[in-house]
Amino acid sequence: MDYYALPIANLIDQFSKLPGIGRKTAQRLAFYVLEMDDIDAELLSRSIVDAKSKIRLCSICCDLTDEEPCHLCQDSNRDKSMICVVEGAKDKIAMERSKEYKGQYHILHGVISPMDNVGPGDIKVKELLNRLADDVVKEVIVATNPTVEGEATALYLSRLIKPMGIKVTRIAHGIPVGGDLEYFDEATLAKAMDNRREMG
Amino acid sequence: MDYYALPIANLIDQFSKLPGIGRKTAQRLAFYVLEMDDIDAELLSRSIVDAKSKIRLCSICCDLTDEEPCHLCQDSNRDKSMICVVEGAKDKIAMERSKEYKGQYHILHGVISPMDNVGPGDIKVKELLNRLADDVVKEVIVATNPTVEGEATALYLSRLIKPMGIKVTRIAHGIPVGGDLEYFDEATLAKAMDNRREMG
Repeated sequence: MDYYALPIANLIDQFSKLPGIGRKTAQRLAFYVLEMDDIDAELLSRSIVDAKSKIRLCSICCDLTDEEPCHLCQDSNRDKSMICVVEGAKDKIAMERSKEYKGQYHILHGVISPMDNVGPGDIKVKELLNRLADDVVKEVIVATNPTVEGEATALYLSRLIKPMGIKVTRIAHGIPVGGDLEYFDEATLAKAMDNRREMG
Repeated sequence: MDYYALPIANLIDQFSKLPGIGRKTAQRLAFYVLEMDDIDAELLSRSIVDAKSKIRLCSICCDLTDEEPCHLCQDSNRDKSMICVVEGAKDKIAMERSKEYKGQYHILHGVISPMDNVGPGDIKVKELLNRLADDVVKEVIVATNPTVEGEATALYLSRLIKPMGIKVTRIAHGIPVGGDLEYFDEATLAKAMDNRREMG
């Protein structure tokens, strides 16, 4: 495009590489940046480089962190006998928001998916098994998503970990709180029926 | 939020300051940045600082530019006798896309809006008048938007410039090409009727 001055065209290009940001939105963001205070633009720019340079994987739970080990792994108030295994860092965040769980986490950074050429060696399975060696962990809660790949990964982990004498559980699947039966698909309803519990 | 490592929380904060970027999208963008190549993240970061530091207003037309004067003002193929006055840099880009107009531009960087405390001194009116002093310009086309403020600004400019013996015109308002009558409001239809032309 000949119409924009080069630094503007370049900024639009960079923004439009981000997910869900189309050409029009990228243009809008670029012009917004041009109208920002220099200090705010500097902050935005530096926050990108900062995050990239400071964030590493925690050597214990593989979460994204700027400390070593991460904040949660350092926290002596968290129950060391339970590990909740999730697919990604965002899943851990979601789980933490519920304020229900007080144990440890392990971030797999993916799921086993032969279709996408992702095997157990491509996700943080080895790191998880290493954590189970010293007999501290009594239960592994597999909280991968209820997709084909998430279920297969859960099954794979269960088969590896159970023989070590550690309890392996799977988070419950069913109707979300506040959900309306008529809006859920058969698979969810079937799971909800399967997982029914006797009332108190 | 206690859940994110500080550099991630900071990056999410910075992204969510951008227009149209909510908390969820900012989170998605931040995690995307963390998964980017270091080089790509560096490019994104640098393009922000670059655009801010290199882009200035052209001393002639007040467009955003990294050259002085801007590319278009330097272009000897453009008709020096016409100036098209627009509200913002994006309006000029839109006009250039039409490939119809071959004259100069002037970017007001706003419109007169007493409600928002924007007077003629807050937009680039003085700079426009300066350009008209040397008798080269024969026509000023006012292409502000057809809003109350845009019309008021057009009227204001016309009253200033006409006494200088320069022709002042207003872009036509009516039904857009490909538009369907039934979808346009009364004001647009009224304009379209008012501005009707005899057919050839």
